[in-house]
Amino acid sequence: MEKIIALRSEFESTLEQLELPEEPKRLYEPIAYTISNGGKRMRPLLVLLGCKLFSSELEDAFHPALGIELFHNFSLIHDDIMDQAPIRRGQPSVYRKWDENVAILSGDAMIVKAYEQLLITKPAAIPHILAQFNKTAIEVCEGQQLDMDFEERDDVSIDDYINMIQLKTAVLLAACLKIGAVIGGASQEQAKKLYDFGLKAGIAFQLQDDILDVHGESQKVGKQKGGDIIANKKTYLLLKAQELASEEQLNRLNQLLALVNADAEKVAGVLEIYKDLNVRQLAEEQMWSYFNDGLSSLQAAGGSEEWTQVLLDFSTQLMHRDS
Amino acid sequence: MEKIIALRSEFESTLEQLELPEEPKRLYEPIAYTISNGGKRMRPLLVLLGCKLFSSELEDAFHPALGIELFHNFSLIHDDIMDQAPIRRGQPSVYRKWDENVAILSGDAMIVKAYEQLLITKPAAIPHILAQFNKTAIEVCEGQQLDMDFEERDDVSIDDYINMIQLKTAVLLAACLKIGAVIGGASQEQAKKLYDFGLKAGIAFQLQDDILDVHGESQKVGKQKGGDIIANKKTYLLLKAQELASEEQLNRLNQLLALVNADAEKVAGVLEIYKDLNVRQLAEEQMWSYFNDGLSSLQAAGGSEEWTQVLLDFSTQLMHRDS
Repeated sequence: MEKIIALRSEFESTLEQLELPEEPKRLYEPIAYTISNGGKRMRPLLVLLGCKLFSSELEDAFHPALGIELFHNFSLIHDDIMDQAPIRRGQPSVYRKWDENVAILSGDAMIVKAYEQLLITKPAAIPHILAQFNKTAIEVCEGQQLDMDFEERDDVSIDDYINMIQLKTAVLLAACLKIGAVIGGASQEQAKKLYDFGLKAGIAFQLQDDILDVHGESQKVGKQKGGDIIANKKTYLLLKAQELASEEQLNRLNQLLALVNADAEKVAGVLEIYKDLNVRQLAEEQMWSYFNDGLSSLQAAGGSEEWTQVLLDFSTQLMHRDS
Repeated sequence: MEKIIALRSEFESTLEQLELPEEPKRLYEPIAYTISNGGKRMRPLLVLLGCKLFSSELEDAFHPALGIELFHNFSLIHDDIMDQAPIRRGQPSVYRKWDENVAILSGDAMIVKAYEQLLITKPAAIPHILAQFNKTAIEVCEGQQLDMDFEERDDVSIDDYINMIQLKTAVLLAACLKIGAVIGGASQEQAKKLYDFGLKAGIAFQLQDDILDVHGESQKVGKQKGGDIIANKKTYLLLKAQELASEEQLNRLNQLLALVNADAEKVAGVLEIYKDLNVRQLAEEQMWSYFNDGLSSLQAAGGSEEWTQVLLDFSTQLMHRDS
C-alpha cells in the first residue's frame, strides 16, 4: 500500500493548491470544510490508478481527479440534506453546521468548481472526460432519486436495489477508472474493460457500505450507526431479511420499521432479526461474488502488471475495510 | 420584433428536441415542468442575438443557448427553495409542487444537462464557452449568497446592492451575449465589448425587476406581488427609501419590516413610504443611467448594424416591460 499512500499524498498536494475566495464566507467556508474533512479519497485515487495503468506520467490526471472528488463531495452535501443525515465523516454535515440554504448553494458552487478542474488536463482528453462525466453525474442523480423513491415503496426487489446502487455509487467509481485510463492513453476498449471492473467492484463496495452501517464501528465510519435502519433505507440487508423472514419475523420487522422516536430499540430489534436470518453473511457472499465477477475485466484491460496488482490490492483492501 | 419572435420560435424547436427519460419521474418531471413553463427566454435569445451580430449562421448557437436556459432554470429552482418563493411564472414553484428534496435533486440534474448542451457546438468554441460559463456560474452563486447575506445585514449600501445584482443577474446576461458572439466568430475584443453592454443592461434589467415586484401586475409578473417587501429583500427601492427617509419615516419603515403574518399591511405600508419618497422614479432614473452607459459598448462591439439594432430594440423593450 506504499504506492497508494504516495498517490494519496500527491493528490492532497493538488487539493491544497485549490484556491477558494474568502467571500462570501457562507458560500466558500462549507466547501473548504467539506474537502478538508478527509474521507478515503477513493475516487481521485481511482483516477490516478486508472492513469498509472497505462502511463508513467500522472501530471494530467491530478486536476480531473480533484474535479471528481469535488463532484462527489457536492453530492454528499446535497444528499445529507435530502436524507437528513446529521453526521458525515464524524463531523456535522454541512446543512447541520450551517443551514439548508448554505448546503444547497455551496453544493451548487462546488459542482461548477468540479467542472473547472476537469478541464485542467491535456486538451485531447477533454471531450471524453466531459462526455463520461456528464453521463455519470446524471446517473448519480437518478440513483439518488431511486434511493429516495424506494423509501416510499414496498415492492422493491433486490434487482431494483442493485440497479439503484449501481447508479448511485458504482458508475462514478467506474468512471474514475475510465477517465484516468483515457488520460493515461488507454484505448476505448481498454478503458471500457476497466469501467466494467469498476462497476462490479463499485456494487460490491456499496454492499460493504450497507454492512458497515450496522456492523461497522460508528466512530470509524463517521456516520450515525444504524442510520440506514433508522431511516428505513431499503438496503440489501433489509431486502434480504424481508425475503427470508417467516411470517412472524416479518410482522416483527414491520413493527420495528414503523417505530418513531425509538431509534435504539429499532436498531437493536432489526439487528436481532438480521442475525437470526444470517443476512450479514449473505450480503458478504453477494459482495464477493460481484467483486470476483469484475476481476476478469480488470485482467482483460491490459494495463501494466505492476499497477494492475496495486489496483487489485487497493480494491481488495476496500472490501475488507471496517469503516 | 418579428426577428425576435422568429428566433424565439427557432429556440423553442431546439427545446422541444430535448429528450428527457421518463424515469425516475420525480427527477425528470420537475425539469420538464420548469422548462415548459415558458418565461421570456431572454438568456437563449441573447445567445442567439450575440451570434447573429457576427454571423448569419445560428446552427452552433442553439444548444449552448439551451444550456444557458437550463442553467438559469436550475438556479431558479434552487433559489425558490432558499427564498421560500411559492410562485414562479404564475405556477407553484418546484419545491411547492413537489417538495424540497425533489427541487434540490432535479435542479442538480438540470445543471448537468446544461453542461451537456453547452458542448453541442463547434469544437473550437467549446474551451471559451466552458471557461466563460464556469466563471459566470460561480459568480451567480456568489450573487445569490450575497443576496441572502444582505437579509441578515443592516449595513448594506447601494454600491453593495449593485455589486450583488451584477453577480446574481447581470453577469449571466452578459455571458450569453459573449458566448453567442464567440460562436458567431467575434474577436475576443468584440465579445468583451458586448459583455460590457450586457453587464450594464443586466443591472438595469434587475432594477426594473425590483420595480416590477411592487409596481408590476402580479398576474403578469407571475410572482407574489410585493414578495421582495414581504421577504425584507434589500432592493434598490428599500435601500433608497432608507437613505432618504426622515427619522419618522425610518421608524415607520422599520416597524413595517418587523411585521410578521401581516403581509398585506406590510406591503401597503411600505409602498406608501416608497410613494412619499418617490423611490420608483429614482430607481427608473438609475436604471436608464446604467442602460445608457452600456450603449457605447454595444456600438463599439462592431456587430452587424441590422442586428445591433435588433438587440437594441429588444433590450429597450425589456426596460419598458410590465412583467
